[in-house]
Parts: sequence; structure tokens; C-alpha cells
Amino acid sequence: MLKDELKAVTLTDRFLSPRQRTGRDATIPECIDKCRTTGRLRAFELKWKPGDPDKPHVYWDSDVAKVLEGMALSLIDTPDPQLAKRLDELVDLVISAQQPDGYLNTHFTLVEPENRWKTLHRDHELYCAGHLIEAAVAHYEATGSRKFLDAMCRCADLIAATFGRGAGQMRGYPGHEEIELALVKLYRATGEKRYLELARYFIDERGAEPKYFVAVEGMSPSKLENLQADKPVREQTAATGHAVRALYLYSAIADVAAETGDADLLDLAKRLFDNIAERRMYITGGVGSSQRGEAFTYDFALPNDTAYSESCAAMALVQFSKRLLDLTGDRKYAEVMEKALYNNVAGGISLDGRRFFYANLLEVNDTTLELMNTGRVRQEWFSCSCCPTSYCRFLPQLGRFCAAAAPDRIRIDIPAGMRIDTPQYAAELSGNYPYSGDLALTIRRGGAFEIAIRIPAWCRKYTVKLNGIDATGAVRNGYWRAKREWRPGDRVELALHIAAELRFADPRVPADSGRAAIQRGALVYCVESADNPDMRLHSLRLPAAPEFSECPAAGLPEGTVALNFPVRHEITPCGEAFSTTVPVYAAGRATAIPYALWQNRGAGAMQVFLLRDC
Amino acid sequence: MLKDELKAVTLTDRFLSPRQRTGRDATIPECIDKCRTTGRLRAFELKWKPGDPDKPHVYWDSDVAKVLEGMALSLIDTPDPQLAKRLDELVDLVISAQQPDGYLNTHFTLVEPENRWKTLHRDHELYCAGHLIEAAVAHYEATGSRKFLDAMCRCADLIAATFGRGAGQMRGYPGHEEIELALVKLYRATGEKRYLELARYFIDERGAEPKYFVAVEGMSPSKLENLQADKPVREQTAATGHAVRALYLYSAIADVAAETGDADLLDLAKRLFDNIAERRMYITGGVGSSQRGEAFTYDFALPNDTAYSESCAAMALVQFSKRLLDLTGDRKYAEVMEKALYNNVAGGISLDGRRFFYANLLEVNDTTLELMNTGRVRQEWFSCSCCPTSYCRFLPQLGRFCAAAAPDRIRIDIPAGMRIDTPQYAAELSGNYPYSGDLALTIRRGGAFEIAIRIPAWCRKYTVKLNGIDATGAVRNGYWRAKREWRPGDRVELALHIAAELRFADPRVPADSGRAAIQRGALVYCVESADNPDMRLHSLRLPAAPEFSECPAAGLPEGTVALNFPVRHEITPCGEAFSTTVPVYAAGRATAIPYALWQNRGAGAMQVFLLRDC
Repeated sequence: MLKDELKAVTLTDRFLSPRQRTGRDATIPECIDKCRTTGRLRAFELKWKPGDPDKPHVYWDSDVAKVLEGMALSLIDTPDPQLAKRLDELVDLVISAQQPDGYLNTHFTLVEPENRWKTLHRDHELYCAGHLIEAAVAHYEATGSRKFLDAMCRCADLIAATFGRGAGQMRGYPGHEEIELALVKLYRATGEKRYLELARYFIDERGAEPKYFVAVEGMSPSKLENLQADKPVREQTAATGHAVRALYLYSAIADVAAETGDADLLDLAKRLFDNIAERRMYITGGVGSSQRGEAFTYDFALPNDTAYSESCAAMALVQFSKRLLDLTGDRKYAEVMEKALYNNVAGGISLDGRRFFYANLLEVNDTTLELMNTGRVRQEWFSCSCCPTSYCRFLPQLGRFCAAAAPDRIRIDIPAGMRIDTPQYAAELSGNYPYSGDLALTIRRGGAFEIAIRIPAWCRKYTVKLNGIDATGAVRNGYWRAKREWRPGDRVELALHIAAELRFADPRVPADSGRAAIQRGALVYCVESADNPDMRLHSLRLPAAPEFSECPAAGLPEGTVALNFPVRHEITPCGEAFSTTVPVYAAGRATAIPYALWQNRGAGAMQVFLLRDC
Repeated sequence: MLKDELKAVTLTDRFLSPRQRTGRDATIPECIDKCRTTGRLRAFELKWKPGDPDKPHVYWDSDVAKVLEGMALSLIDTPDPQLAKRLDELVDLVISAQQPDGYLNTHFTLVEPENRWKTLHRDHELYCAGHLIEAAVAHYEATGSRKFLDAMCRCADLIAATFGRGAGQMRGYPGHEEIELALVKLYRATGEKRYLELARYFIDERGAEPKYFVAVEGMSPSKLENLQADKPVREQTAATGHAVRALYLYSAIADVAAETGDADLLDLAKRLFDNIAERRMYITGGVGSSQRGEAFTYDFALPNDTAYSESCAAMALVQFSKRLLDLTGDRKYAEVMEKALYNNVAGGISLDGRRFFYANLLEVNDTTLELMNTGRVRQEWFSCSCCPTSYCRFLPQLGRFCAAAAPDRIRIDIPAGMRIDTPQYAAELSGNYPYSGDLALTIRRGGAFEIAIRIPAWCRKYTVKLNGIDATGAVRNGYWRAKREWRPGDRVELALHIAAELRFADPRVPADSGRAAIQRGALVYCVESADNPDMRLHSLRLPAAPEFSECPAAGLPEGTVALNFPVRHEITPCGEAFSTTVPVYAAGRATAIPYALWQNRGAGAMQVFLLRDC
């Protein structure tokens, strides 16, 4: 159960755990408040009538659901009677809007009841139901109360009766995937196999002939690809279309594969993951490079100054990677999970937990046009406010992305400082990851179990000691492994060599040609105006092999490692358009900070990939 | 009169005159045919009824008008009885659709007669009227027949009665400018001052409070800027919004300034031109860098791989520059005119005159997403097919952009090979401009007049001889000038040094930082896959100061000068995403061709700005 996963791991590090804390102290309360002031909560009172302000929008219910899910998840490891009371009230409010037949959606109940289930391709009816189901499962796990869960079972039963291949059923499926993975969660919480079957139906019917969205709803066939509905899901080979939708679908594919043992589905999920990781992902773990359709585009099309890389998509990629990691134990999934988590996901939210990027650009300069509102400056809220509410439910789960504890095995995928506590054993991981690679895992309560600790792929020099004796040889397939009877005080020490390095894109990425990014361990770095006020960042040139010196980062959390290095920057006089005046460069030094922390000291220019002499 | 301008200059060069010929032989006939097969001509029969195919679109009339204008202009210097007969038939067809009150618009007559003048901000009612007026003026000049002109006077009179500040009039103005400059042409053709007054009204009312589009038509205020209607025209300081609309407005501003002596308007036109030329124009003369709104964006925002740079906008920039050149005689306007003409405009149409770019990118690589359909491959026609029909009317005018002949002065702005023939004098300019700078102007029929020949600003080494004697000293303000009694056989010889050079953007242009373009005389060069099949063009690196050797261009017109030069190109093995593998470059040589000629040997990658070692 998710509850056990969350209770097993308590982050104590200086990078992730403060994010979890601000999520609890700022993000969740702010989002509850925004749901209140924008009318999203009031919608569930079912008092809205035509002509009233705050007309419930098709995706509103999902925002409330995600906040409720976040509240519930947060309560699992951090009890808070006030929050629990508020959650209970809100759950009652949500349930009160359920119709006698189990239907639960404020927009289609209030605004256009005649159109229930009629525009699946465009609206978010099944999507909202999915999020409410996820919230109900989390609420059940956090509180033990079945009231929300039972309500959503009734809703899921209505959906199961409505959709399918049986007589009188609609052969539809959602325009925005989400219900599929939610149904697997509901199956896991209830044991009711029909929910798993319905999830499988939604996956297998998607894109089948005749195309439901076209044949029944009259959608233009040209738009099918954005919804992963242009061909049967099992025939899809590349990550296409709307990135969040795609990744929710792929996560459900992995879930159904896990529950049914369907090897074809697992292969499909792996194939789609590889296409993303090798060809369609930014160095930050960002995915969905085009604002148009919020979509994956082509292999190697990764423009920096118009990157879309929605925060929600990066969170979805973490969740998808985590599923494949748990299913296969293959380190490559942990690599992507870590990359997206420490860079795109962490950068999408301000350090105080109150402001959010929708789009996560890799270059912002004075002329950047695209994505002005959503990309250049973090916002408190959006009219379509999926990203803030995604953080509400994502941040409480940070611990489970770092370690997976089973009764006979603890697998540490991201060696952040943490306490691990299960009925079988307890341990503590100390250190200052991701800034430092000097880590120690100390057993607090022993037993017979396996310990597996990931050696990150970016780390090419490391040693491991067990109780002071070299044990580096026990690394297999990217994990240091030891299975034994552990005793309190047993100690595994890791020394992962972490150094700033240049990183280069595949030569087929035009946007990064002649450029390099700086990475130090798990963290991608960027230059920002705040540290380099007198340089045009877009003109910075790295030497072929710069020497980096580490330094404190002014105005950022203590312990943050900034990097200082030699550059040249253009000082050609301005004012000549396309002249023969040869550009003039001055030598200087620039400072880079972790991309995850940019724009916490005011807005300005920022750049990840820098020109490089070679 | 335009007729005299066109008759005075006959191009004989190898670069522009073949374009004019294919315009006559291919572009115009093809566009007539497309107007026929798409229903644009049939619309004027007024037989369409709801439910019929080929519903007349709001901008259809403009396409027909522009083709008619092109036919008429072409007939002025190249008589063609068959073309003349077809033009006469088509003019009759168009006039036949005029309503008793003078109204002439197929869409609003057939499709939504109840909405006449009701959605000026969105629809193209006044825009189409403007193009029909321009066509009527051209028809009148070409044929002497007043039938089309009189019809359009009746239409203009209706517009004058409908719009204005008087009682019962609408204080509207067009969403897409064009009528303003057309009215000035109509005034010049008829001498009727009310048309000039109406043009001035449309300019001065635009953007005034209360904002008509918002107050009367309910448009969102956020969209005003795209229509140059966010503030009064006289208060505008930067080129904003939809580039074609903007440049048609600016052209009208120059026209009204010319006719009324309004110095403020002239200053306004100059200010807007400077903003474009210094900050918002590509090296190719392309303008309107964003597909979103087909618009100007910000100073120095000139992305190469997502350039919009609509062909129509470049043609409009040529026309605007020509107006300011004629008004001021200032060489800087000729510089921009030449740049746009020889690069963006010439590149927007295939050498055979049958295919067109809508958007003119400066970089096309395998991953380019934006503008797939309109930007990567020239098309025969578009659903909104303004660019092909713009070439119909633009190409017959090429001569007048090269030279302006007055009774007492011939001003040669672009020294292409040409014959000049006026009642007062005749002369011949020979040479192979723009490939060669060795030119000779020979007087064929003499008289007392001034000769002014532009010394291009890109040319920093030149000599001028008059009848064999050095006369280089007679250059003033960018023109070589001599006023005297010319005799047949008098000869002015120019030796303009033309060499391939690197060109650099203003350092504030992020997209070109660390890059250089290659220019040789008036021509911007590009590398194209056809000549460099084994290199990834996006990885090409120029040496700091490459030596260029000139060579023939395989598969392009005889006389085309290609450039060969040393480069390095990346040969790093593919397949590693963001690794520490240091990029490997191989030395080689690349070939560049004039940008104006790219994609005439199949589709492929192309790049103007190349990375440069420095």
C-alpha cells in the first residue's frame, strides 16, 4: 500500500525535505484557498445556475481532487488534526455532489447535464473522475474511512456500466487519460477485479477502429495523435502528443502489465520510455517540447528557449519511471526519475512553495516571446491550474521515489538523507546528497534483508565500505547489493565522486550543437542574471575544458554549491544590424547555480546550454 | 503614374528579369487557374447558396483582385492580346457582382449579407475593397478603360459615406489595413480629394478612444496590438503586430504624408522604418518573426528556425521602403529594399514561379517543427493564398524598384542590368549584378538630366569612371551623381568591389550569438543539403576568418556564384543523450549558395547563420 511506502521513508536531507515541508506548509494551504476563492469548492455545493459567476469548468474537479489527495498523503507521515478536519469537511462536500446514479462531476451536473459523456475527446469528465478516485484511495489509506472510497466505487461502477464492448455500452475512452491508472489504484484498494478490467478496456480500445472520437464525436482525425488515439495503443512506438496525457497512459500501461503479467504491455511501456529517454527528453528531465498541443514532437527536437516541458509532465515522467523501476529493478529508470525530480520538477516550484512554472524553459533571454506568461515568471495560480495542484499531491511522495522498502529488501534509488523505518528493520542514511557523494547508511534496527543502493550512472568513480572494509566489488547492474543478517550499528559508507562536468547533447539535437551544459552529480546547472549581472548570458562561451571552482551561492539555501568558471562574453558595441564588425569578447568568470533553484532571487535571464569553444 | 514608371525601366539582368518572365509565364496563369478551380472566380457570379461547396471566404476577393492587378501591370510593358482579353472578361465578371449601392464583396453578399461592416476587426471586407481598388487603378492605367475604376469609385463612395466622423457614420476602420493605401492610389488616379481624406481618416481614427473594435465589436482588448489598434497611430513608436497589416498601414502613412505634406506623418513612417531596420528585421529582409499572429514581436527577437518572415511581409517592406526612398532620396531605404528583394522576396518563390513559401525560415533541420506545412516546402497554393497572388502583382513591378526615372533625373537604386527609356532620354545598364560589380551605364538618347547611381552600403571599395576618366569623387550621400547634358555614347563605368564576407548580428540578438552569416554583395548565402549532403548543417563551424573561393553552383542558373570554404562539422557518434562524450569535429569544406535560390533542387536542410570559431 502507498501508505506503507510513505511511512517507511522520512526524508531528512537539505534538498528534498524542505520542499516537502513547504509543500505541506504553503503549497497545500494556498491551493485549498485558491480552490475556495476561484469557486472550485463552491461548485460542489451544486448551487451554481446559469448567469452566476464562476461557472464550473470541465477540469475544476480535478484540481480539488488533487489537493484532497495531497492533504491525505501528507497526513500519512505528518499527522495534523486541523488538516485532517479540513480534509474530512472537504470530502463530505465533494461526496455531497454525487448524483443518485453515482455520477460525480460539477461541470456536467450544473452547466450542461444534457452532454454527459458526449464530448470525451475534448472535455475532462473521465479525467476528473480518475483524480477523484485517486483522492479517494489516498483518503482511505490515510484515514481508514471508506466514505470517499465507497462513493468513488459507485462512480466507477457507473463508468463501468456505461463504457465497454457490451450491448448498450459506449465504446468510448477519455480524451485526457488518467482514469486508467486510477482504476488500477481502485482495484488495488478494493480487490475488485472489474476496475482492473475497465482500465485494460480503456487502454485497448484507445485508437481502435472505428476511431471513437472521429466516428461518434466528429473530431478531426488530424487531432487524434495529440490524444494518443491515432492508432491502437499496443502499436504505438514513439511518445506522441500531449505529454501529460501520454505519460498517464503509459503509467497505466505499466500498472496493468504489473497486475496482469501482460508481457506485451510491459514491453510497450519500456519501448515508449526508451524513446523518451533517448530522444525526446531535455537534460533537465523535461518532456513535451512544444507549447502547441503541450506535446512531444519529433526525435531530437529540443529547443531551449521555447521548451514547454510542463511541470506536470515532469512529475508524470517521475511516476512512470518509478513504476518501471519497481517492475524491473533496472537502474536506467532511476536515472531518469532522479534527473526529472532534481531538475525539472524541483525547478517548477519556487523555494517557498508558493509559485509555479507551467513551462520550464532552458533559456530565457530578453527577447523570448513564447510562453511569456507561463514560462518566464512563476505564477501563484493559472486559469488551468494543474501544475500547482500536481505539486500538492507529488511533494508528499518524495520519499517513496528515493527508497522502496520491502520486508526482505530495501532498495535505495536516490541516496538522499533519510530515515527508513519498517516493521522489519530501521536504518538511517546521512550525507548531503545531491551536493556531496559522501554517504553513510547506518542500521538502527537489524534483521535479515537485502540492501541495494544505486550507484548513479553519472558517477564513474566510487568506493563502498561495509563496516570500514572495502566492499566496492559488490556493485551489480548499477546497485551495490548485500544480503545478510544486519545488526544495529552496521554501516555502509559510500564515496561517490561528484564533480562538475560538461554535458553534450546527441549530435542530432540542433538546438544544442556547439553548446554544452554543466552538470554536477544529479544537478543540471544554469547561469542566471542574478549572479552574472554584467554579461549577456546568451553570448557566454565556455572554454573547451573549463576548470570549475565550487563556491557558495548568494541568496540560496545554505549548502547550495555554486560553480565558478572562466568564460568569454561578447562586448561588441550595439547598434549595427548584420554588419561586418567582428564580435569582440572579453574574458571573465561566470557563476552557475542548480537549475532547480533559478528565479528564486528575482526574474531575469537564464541559460542552461552555453556556447563552447572547441 | 505607375504606368510611366513601369514603361521606363525594362530589366535585362540574369537575376531579376527571369523572375519577372516566370511571373508572367507561370505565376499569373497558375494563379488565375487556381482562382478558377477553388471557386474564387465563380463566387463573383453570385450563384452560391448555403449548402453549396466552395463557400466564398472573407479574403477570397483579394486573391482575385491581386491577380487582376498583376495581369494589368504585366500588360503595361508586355502586351499580350490573349491576356488582355482574359483580363477584360474577368473585370466584367468582378464588376457584375457589384450591388446597386456600390457594395462589392462576394462573401458578405452571398454568405452573411446581414453582417455587412459588422466585424471589421476580424473580417477582410475593407481589405478586399482595397485590393479591388488597386486592381482597378492598375487596369485603368494598363488599358485606359474606366469601367473597373468607375465601379470601384462607386464602392469607395459607399465606404466614404459609411465611415467617418459625421452624423450617422460608423467610426470604424479595417482590421486588416490595405484600403488606406488603395484610396491614395484612387485619389492619384482620379484627382478626387475625398479618397485621400478617407485614407487619412482611417489612419487617424485607428486606435483612438473609444477603441472601435472593443467598444462596438466586442473584441478582446488584448488583441488590439496585433492590428496596430492599441493606441493612436501617430503615437506608435515600434513596429507591432501582424507584419503585413503593419506595413500596409505604414505605406499608407508615407503616401498620405507625400500627398499632404504632413511632416508628423513622415516622421512617424521614418521612425517605424528605423525600428524595423535596426531591430526587427532578419538579414534576409524578412520581417514578422513569429507565426503567432504572423507578427513583429520584440526588438532583436529573430529566431532562425522558427522565423515567420512571410513572403507578403517582405514584399510589403520593399513597397514601404520604396515609398520612403522616393520621398527622401535617402540611401538607407534602398539598402533595405534591396536586401528584402534579393533575399526574402526572391527566396519566397521557386525559380519556375510555381511554388511559394508562406514563411521563410533561416534554418531548416530535421527536427524543425513549427511551420511544417508553410515553411519547409514551397507549396503551389494555400487555403489563405495571399503569397502567390502577391507575387502576381509584385513581379511586374521589379523594374521600378531598380530605377526611378523622372524627366530631369534618373535615380538607379539597384544597378541591375536594364534598359531605361523615357520621352526625355534612354540609357542602358549592363553588367551581371548582383553577382558582379562591374557595371556600365551607356547613354543611348541624350539630354540634360541628372544621373544618380546608388553605391550600395555593403560596398566599401569602388571606383566610378565617366567616359573613361575617374569620377569616383562625385559620390554624395551614397549616390554617384552627375547632372549635365548627356550625349549618346556617354558612359559611366562602376567597379563595385563584391566579395564574400561574414556578417554578424547586433549582439543583442540571442539566436545569432556565436554565429555568422555569409553575404556577398546584396546576396545572403546559405548552406543547403543539396551541396553538402554528408554534413549535419546545424553542426557546421566556420573558422574565425574563412577564405571563400567562388565556384559554379550545380543545378542552379548559369552565372550563379556559389562559395566554397573550410568548415568543421560534428562527427560524434550518435546515441548518447547528454553524456560527457566530448564532441568530435572533422575538417571539411562546405558550399553555400544564395539564399534566394535554395530549395530549387529538392527539399532538405538549410542554414543561414553558422556557428563560428572565434
